[in-house]
Amino acid sequence: MPSQFDPPSGTRDLLAAEVERRERAFAIIRSVFSSYGFEPLQTPAFERLDVLLGKYGEEGDKLVFKILRRGEHEATGEADLALRYDHTVPLARVAAAYGSQLPTPYKRYALGPVWRADRPGKDRYREFAQCDLDTLGSPSLLADAEVLSAHNDALAELGIMDFTILLNSRRVLAGLLEAFSVRPEIGAGVLASLDKLDKLAPAEVVSELTGRGLAPGQADELVEALTGPDAVEQVRVALSKTETGTAGLDEVDTLMSLLSGQLPAGRIAFTPRMVRGLSYYTGPIWEFTAAGVAGSLGGGGRYDHLIEQLGGPDAPATGSSVGVERILPLLPDADGTKRGRLDVAVTVLRSDLASQSFGFAAAARSAGLRASVYLGSSGKLSRQLKWASDSGARWSLIYGEQDHEAGTVTVRDMISGEQVQVPAPEVGNYFARAGREAS
Amino acid sequence: MPSQFDPPSGTRDLLAAEVERRERAFAIIRSVFSSYGFEPLQTPAFERLDVLLGKYGEEGDKLVFKILRRGEHEATGEADLALRYDHTVPLARVAAAYGSQLPTPYKRYALGPVWRADRPGKDRYREFAQCDLDTLGSPSLLADAEVLSAHNDALAELGIMDFTILLNSRRVLAGLLEAFSVRPEIGAGVLASLDKLDKLAPAEVVSELTGRGLAPGQADELVEALTGPDAVEQVRVALSKTETGTAGLDEVDTLMSLLSGQLPAGRIAFTPRMVRGLSYYTGPIWEFTAAGVAGSLGGGGRYDHLIEQLGGPDAPATGSSVGVERILPLLPDADGTKRGRLDVAVTVLRSDLASQSFGFAAAARSAGLRASVYLGSSGKLSRQLKWASDSGARWSLIYGEQDHEAGTVTVRDMISGEQVQVPAPEVGNYFARAGREAS
Repeated sequence: MPSQFDPPSGTRDLLAAEVERRERAFAIIRSVFSSYGFEPLQTPAFERLDVLLGKYGEEGDKLVFKILRRGEHEATGEADLALRYDHTVPLARVAAAYGSQLPTPYKRYALGPVWRADRPGKDRYREFAQCDLDTLGSPSLLADAEVLSAHNDALAELGIMDFTILLNSRRVLAGLLEAFSVRPEIGAGVLASLDKLDKLAPAEVVSELTGRGLAPGQADELVEALTGPDAVEQVRVALSKTETGTAGLDEVDTLMSLLSGQLPAGRIAFTPRMVRGLSYYTGPIWEFTAAGVAGSLGGGGRYDHLIEQLGGPDAPATGSSVGVERILPLLPDADGTKRGRLDVAVTVLRSDLASQSFGFAAAARSAGLRASVYLGSSGKLSRQLKWASDSGARWSLIYGEQDHEAGTVTVRDMISGEQVQVPAPEVGNYFARAGREAS
Repeated sequence: MPSQFDPPSGTRDLLAAEVERRERAFAIIRSVFSSYGFEPLQTPAFERLDVLLGKYGEEGDKLVFKILRRGEHEATGEADLALRYDHTVPLARVAAAYGSQLPTPYKRYALGPVWRADRPGKDRYREFAQCDLDTLGSPSLLADAEVLSAHNDALAELGIMDFTILLNSRRVLAGLLEAFSVRPEIGAGVLASLDKLDKLAPAEVVSELTGRGLAPGQADELVEALTGPDAVEQVRVALSKTETGTAGLDEVDTLMSLLSGQLPAGRIAFTPRMVRGLSYYTGPIWEFTAAGVAGSLGGGGRYDHLIEQLGGPDAPATGSSVGVERILPLLPDADGTKRGRLDVAVTVLRSDLASQSFGFAAAARSAGLRASVYLGSSGKLSRQLKWASDSGARWSLIYGEQDHEAGTVTVRDMISGEQVQVPAPEVGNYFARAGREAS
């Protein structure tokens, strides 16, 4: 039941375990992207409203979170800023702003939250993270191959093994429409229907296609060519008859050949029925799919004119994006065990000895362990050992009356319950050794 | 001159070098906080408007970025959400929402952007990062000492050596007002004037104090006690005459003694004239200052009732915050040299051999190096070597006609200009060795 203390609808508070899981994943992703020579770019959380509006279509515009003018202008109820909706429009703005100060080609990644006023639902958030990888300024298929390969490696390095890359090309789709004599004016609609072949039965798509103006036989043939047992072969034959189709096939085969050495067998599959909804793609397109995940993990393709349309320079571009919230649930657990908050829990049994306890915690930290003193009000050892146990500490460091007089501390192994006396000046060395042995 | 491509006023685009610098600093800070057993918390970028409004005073409310209602409600011009203004109010909300699911005490850090519609200026941003460290649920001075010590260690670990911690206590200030017979009703105003002793001349502060209703002799004595050569001694004598003052001195001395073993000599100084503006502090207060930085790097203190006032549970609390934009300029440069984007730049001299080049780059990456193929359109070696040089690559891997026939690659050392032939299957091993030797 939602309470007044919940975060806003569609957003989440990330407590320690979740933050740590995300940060670990982000570190891996950054490291892989960097190994390809991609560099990070961080843009502000908000942009001027006019930079964003009109870039995502009418539906998209409605999902943009708009920020009120401040000060005396607030009363107008007008907005002048808006939260980042994706990482692509900010990239176009940065490309326009920095121009030749950026490397050529400009290979950048962006990893961070975007905000959309979508209807929240299970695994659908209004604040979610996107992981974008784009190369501006290269028309070469090597750039597409590199983006694909880097995203592939990032997923693999995260420990996600069971995923597939569906590969196609806008030119393949155009060639297909040509080969099946689809009239150009209904081409876009036909592709939109074909895009549903992974969700609807073939017969349903056929009926949509005839509704759009295809002759029944024509619709049957097209759907059969894309879904039959030898679909890829049938499509290849059809495409080879047109110039656009041949060029599209070439694109797909070149990419497959560039990637063949890097990817495990079966990872990438030419998928002629894969359309990807967005109309701005101009060349190869791809999607990452995983067993058990509805929809895709992400995808991308070449979009040679979009950066200019979005207000940037006219640069060839290719890019790929995955949804962080889609891939995080697929990560294998670090090691199945929940890591405690502390390695060493230091008791404070007499307040006049707190300073020494404080020093012992510092010594354990210097030895590379996580250590803290007891901050509660109870002077009872049993209570303080309960805290040590709740903190998941591997060791308790007990410093009471007798230890104080003997110039020692008592180190208790919280798993075995064994205790040893350690001379107070040796605490740092002791934990340096114990830490090495335990790790 | 601002252009239409600039980010919104008061915000910045962070290009590669700056992002990397920040991420390195953040990693160090997180690691130090974690070594004390503090755990991360990430809350959404925005909160419901009612959660934020009324929590920062009238001036603060004006600086909150408000987000318009969406959909058909947008026309009303009303806001229902607002961007995070600090990390403390979200902490209070989380404490209320999660209650006993959180550890006791709850030691958390938050490191991320906050947004304020302040007037932008040099080093003043509307989007800036705060680094907060707080312990909820412990009334012990050990908790204050731990927070202080952790922030101190984080700054030191970042390589910032020349900073000072000014320490005081609200009880010291209360005792001081009592010892100098300041009437309670003008106490807050007197403290506000004393807070200016680091900016104004003593005589100016005296004149402010008399304006607030202090007798001239009384104002003189008070300012003299706080600024004279033996100020601390004079204050100690004055404080020892009142109960509150004695308690305040005790607090300061206990903290100093807890920290004395951990901090270098002179790092922390009892500073009776340090007030810290915010009225919600209830015990020890501190500020981090550095030579050459106007104002402070940050600060904090105990605020035992604030969490409840902000809508959370009634919990004792202590915390400390530093401004990331304040500390980043103080960091020593990593090693003075700018790191290139690549270690290995792989040429593509014949498009029909691109697949092999692609494979060589992958082999270099497997050896732990950053490697990429040439993505431009020129087939000329000189042009491609220029790209290698611009990318800061340590080596170029040249793969042309002759290499192809000989089954080798040519590795060029971009510093010495020396070239060696390496058998193609040995590329990975070669770079694994070369990488180790170069690092």
